[in-house]
Amino acid sequence: MKVVCILSGGMDSTTAMYQMHNRGHKVTALTFDYGQRHAKEIGCARAVCRQLDVPHTVVNLSGITKLLGGSALTADVEVPEGHYAEENMRATVVPNRNMIMLGVAAANAIAIKADAVMFAAHAGDHAVYPDCRLEFVHAVETAINVGNYEHIAVIAPFIHYSKTQIVQIGLEEGVPYHLTWSCYKGEDVACGRCGTCTERLEAFHLAGIEDPIEYQDREYWKTVIK
Amino acid sequence: MKVVCILSGGMDSTTAMYQMHNRGHKVTALTFDYGQRHAKEIGCARAVCRQLDVPHTVVNLSGITKLLGGSALTADVEVPEGHYAEENMRATVVPNRNMIMLGVAAANAIAIKADAVMFAAHAGDHAVYPDCRLEFVHAVETAINVGNYEHIAVIAPFIHYSKTQIVQIGLEEGVPYHLTWSCYKGEDVACGRCGTCTERLEAFHLAGIEDPIEYQDREYWKTVIK
Repeated sequence: MKVVCILSGGMDSTTAMYQMHNRGHKVTALTFDYGQRHAKEIGCARAVCRQLDVPHTVVNLSGITKLLGGSALTADVEVPEGHYAEENMRATVVPNRNMIMLGVAAANAIAIKADAVMFAAHAGDHAVYPDCRLEFVHAVETAINVGNYEHIAVIAPFIHYSKTQIVQIGLEEGVPYHLTWSCYKGEDVACGRCGTCTERLEAFHLAGIEDPIEYQDREYWKTVIK
Repeated sequence: MKVVCILSGGMDSTTAMYQMHNRGHKVTALTFDYGQRHAKEIGCARAVCRQLDVPHTVVNLSGITKLLGGSALTADVEVPEGHYAEENMRATVVPNRNMIMLGVAAANAIAIKADAVMFAAHAGDHAVYPDCRLEFVHAVETAINVGNYEHIAVIAPFIHYSKTQIVQIGLEEGVPYHLTWSCYKGEDVACGRCGTCTERLEAFHLAGIEDPIEYQDREYWKTVIK
């Protein structure tokens, strides 16, 4: 199978791509620059693709940033701290982001005669991000396949997996987690306090190993777990 | 109602926007630059928005052009001549184009608290473009609404209308057709021979008035009608 992977440079999409690649599928990667403040993840995506020798394109979507409104990921809005599933994390929602990225990925999949597009939504995303839920995966796959001559599958391998289970899979697959980036704040060192940092630190803890990247605050997550 | 219109600068989307605007709805317009060779339509879209004093954004998606493969609209592939519904017109299909444009428009609609996005697919598009069919409109609307907290309607007012009927509506609405552009070739003067030129000339003929724009070949369409 030939798969166009949406690779953010974070741990979920990197793990999904490693697993797909390690099983012998032909993988290419797209990383979207939509003006996110944590653009550091783009460099991480590049490093990961170099490791696997996977063709990689950074897709410049900066032309849409100003259309997206006031998400904490793209505008001058403070990144919330705390647990990933908290109500205040809705400030990090970028409207319709996954349809835009999957829409472009599907167009590219058709152009290069690939069979599928993949994105790494996981169970922990469901609470806050409606476009990371199974219903959305089905709906967008239907829309892609009604709207084109070619059949393109939409694969979301971690839709029923927790972040901890993703770490466990990644360790088996040899994922270089030291090359991945999750923090929403986009500073030089991960903050340890935003939703994605606390979720990541908890996941590594529950998987029984230490997260290999550096944090400004490696203990804060323990105060917000449920 | 507040509506984000996808405005190409062609006659269908211009007519749809005029009608919506003339009925008192609050209209904003997005024009997508995805590397199409007929970029002249972008200037036409700008002129039309000035006429109506409608807020207009040209969305730079040139970062995706190279991902889209070999459509005659975006790559070095010859634009086919003949009837719009002919098999050879499939060379003008840009994969997944409407999902990408509607995806961005829906994101913008959410950001500016609009109620709907509109695009002007019409009955004549159905033969060649699967993402201009009613099934696609329904599918993409479902995906948008499953994937976001907000409800955004997808309006395709001309999905059951022929190009001739669009001209008739536009004449009633006062659409300045001399400002619109359809030709796929993107030369200084419309060719009169590509699918969209022949369809347009036939539509004006059937509506009983003369198309006010200039053509290199104003008679060719008569040789390809069915």
